[in-house]
Amino acid sequence: MTKTYEPLQSVRWDNNELILLDQTKLPEETEFLILQDVQQVWDAIERLKVRGAPAIGITAAYGVYVAIRNFEAATVDELLAEVKKQADYLATSRPTAVNLFWALDRMVHRAETAATQGESVSEIKRSLLGEAQDIQAEDEAVCRAIGEHALTLFSDGMGVLTHCNAGGLATAKYGTATAPMYLAHEKGWNIKVFADETRPVLQGARLTAYELQQAGIDVTLICDNMAAKVMSNGWVQAVIVGTDRVAANGDVANKIGTYGLAVLARAHNIPFYVAAPLSSIDVKTPTGKEIPIEEREADEIIHGLGRQVAPADIKVYNPAFDVTPHEYVTAIITEKGIIRAPYTEKLQALLQK
Amino acid sequence: MTKTYEPLQSVRWDNNELILLDQTKLPEETEFLILQDVQQVWDAIERLKVRGAPAIGITAAYGVYVAIRNFEAATVDELLAEVKKQADYLATSRPTAVNLFWALDRMVHRAETAATQGESVSEIKRSLLGEAQDIQAEDEAVCRAIGEHALTLFSDGMGVLTHCNAGGLATAKYGTATAPMYLAHEKGWNIKVFADETRPVLQGARLTAYELQQAGIDVTLICDNMAAKVMSNGWVQAVIVGTDRVAANGDVANKIGTYGLAVLARAHNIPFYVAAPLSSIDVKTPTGKEIPIEEREADEIIHGLGRQVAPADIKVYNPAFDVTPHEYVTAIITEKGIIRAPYTEKLQALLQK
Repeated sequence: MTKTYEPLQSVRWDNNELILLDQTKLPEETEFLILQDVQQVWDAIERLKVRGAPAIGITAAYGVYVAIRNFEAATVDELLAEVKKQADYLATSRPTAVNLFWALDRMVHRAETAATQGESVSEIKRSLLGEAQDIQAEDEAVCRAIGEHALTLFSDGMGVLTHCNAGGLATAKYGTATAPMYLAHEKGWNIKVFADETRPVLQGARLTAYELQQAGIDVTLICDNMAAKVMSNGWVQAVIVGTDRVAANGDVANKIGTYGLAVLARAHNIPFYVAAPLSSIDVKTPTGKEIPIEEREADEIIHGLGRQVAPADIKVYNPAFDVTPHEYVTAIITEKGIIRAPYTEKLQALLQK
Repeated sequence: MTKTYEPLQSVRWDNNELILLDQTKLPEETEFLILQDVQQVWDAIERLKVRGAPAIGITAAYGVYVAIRNFEAATVDELLAEVKKQADYLATSRPTAVNLFWALDRMVHRAETAATQGESVSEIKRSLLGEAQDIQAEDEAVCRAIGEHALTLFSDGMGVLTHCNAGGLATAKYGTATAPMYLAHEKGWNIKVFADETRPVLQGARLTAYELQQAGIDVTLICDNMAAKVMSNGWVQAVIVGTDRVAANGDVANKIGTYGLAVLARAHNIPFYVAAPLSSIDVKTPTGKEIPIEEREADEIIHGLGRQVAPADIKVYNPAFDVTPHEYVTAIITEKGIIRAPYTEKLQALLQK
């Protein structure tokens, strides 16, 4: 059931099989799973073997096809009922993942449209596989476009610092903040990446350092509190991060620690870039002040690393995100191009393109 | 052999016994050891049950007295020989600890002086206990004086952020950066402390959060990358840290992460204070550039927390210290008073007081 593949891609459809990198085993083991039935897909999502909104959506979309490909439907209606049933089942695997529902809805809608268009049972099955592949291809294209735009800001030999994991593991391929690193590597450029470990959950150490290393990119792991020293050493010429949400005025919500990096980058005259797919730009949120900041449990800091590192009952402040005011953002890099301040009008215009 | 005492003090002489807080059991257990012979003292130092240069020196000084108090010397010369032998033995417990040698030399010198002054065997023994108590009292007085000066910069209800452990556990009492927190608490002020966990070795989580909590001070643990958010939340009105070395121009070497905090404090218009006993001011080092920065092993970051958190063979940059340029230092707080820029002349003058 397990097999190792290269190059690293967290979800792929290959040789008529759904292949998933088991992210729960990272960084110790690189193990790929072949998901052969819908139960295995459901388990993989529920047990966090796949993470990152785009990657979850892609996995679930393929999951719908895996669920129905061998279903012997006498009629198109029988197939449609089964597609809905399996999509509803897959939706229960991670009840808060918006991207999961979006992808499943899209699969159901595709089956319905195909039926309306008079496709047969076997044609509808093929269309569903095609739809899942489209979802994946579209995500890959978005990431690649972000990477190509970002690459115009990069140069051979450059040092780049990143935070958390806005990487290929979370997406179809390339990631967002990591996309220019992969594309630079494809071009044969030597880019030196510094990856913040990103306490408390260590996505930088566990995921970003891992995936860049697997791709053969020069990556150095640091603790979050070493970023200022790396900057003052003159080792990085850009900071690039992903985002969870960009407000209408260009304020950027991202993993805790991002705001501090932006302030440090400014103090060292280093540009601070945000890689943001259009889907993360939320013009309904006027500024960063309106973005709610989730506070997570104390135990993530006290016990999160395998052993107790602080008094068991110590008071803890554990915000999962922070907001970087747009004044600190040198540029926002989207799949449709790069924008700079003033952001409000330019973000509006970009979304209306 | 073990007993719990309050209030927390890492080394003390009480009821004719040497009592040591076992720091290897922190933060899970608060266990005090009664060290009854020189072998136990040697073991405690060698096994890092006591840490912090002043606390090690104090422990070793008491260790000399513990070693000879029951020695039946027929002559003063016989006692002096035994004092030297035991001091030499204790010096082997931690071969790189300068403060350890300094304290042991001082004990031997005290015995010799006492002998020269015609003291008897039993009088010399009493003098040695007195010398160890003096070493402890002097360190406590230095810390308390730093705290009193620092307190003039504090006010009731204030939020304070600190990094690493420049705390009471490392000294006779009060610590350096923590001294004003303890004194404010003694006055009944409500000071709200934020303690950076201080990756990779987590001295802030394991020690600072612990000791302040034990003393009943309001302390909140955060990850290093949350400091910027705490500042932008408006929760702290001062940052105060200790130091390993202050250069002649006021540049400050301290635990990695300190420099970044200083830059963040500046960006938020928060004063950045350094608590520095005169013994840490090194006018022979012209600037911070001449202070060597130790780089520690990758494993401290990859495995240092009980489980592997990054690829085993990942490249790591792990500087133990950084240098904060004097431009970022609002004031240096010593036992002889507070000084502000320009530092060069004022540091010289202070040392000549």
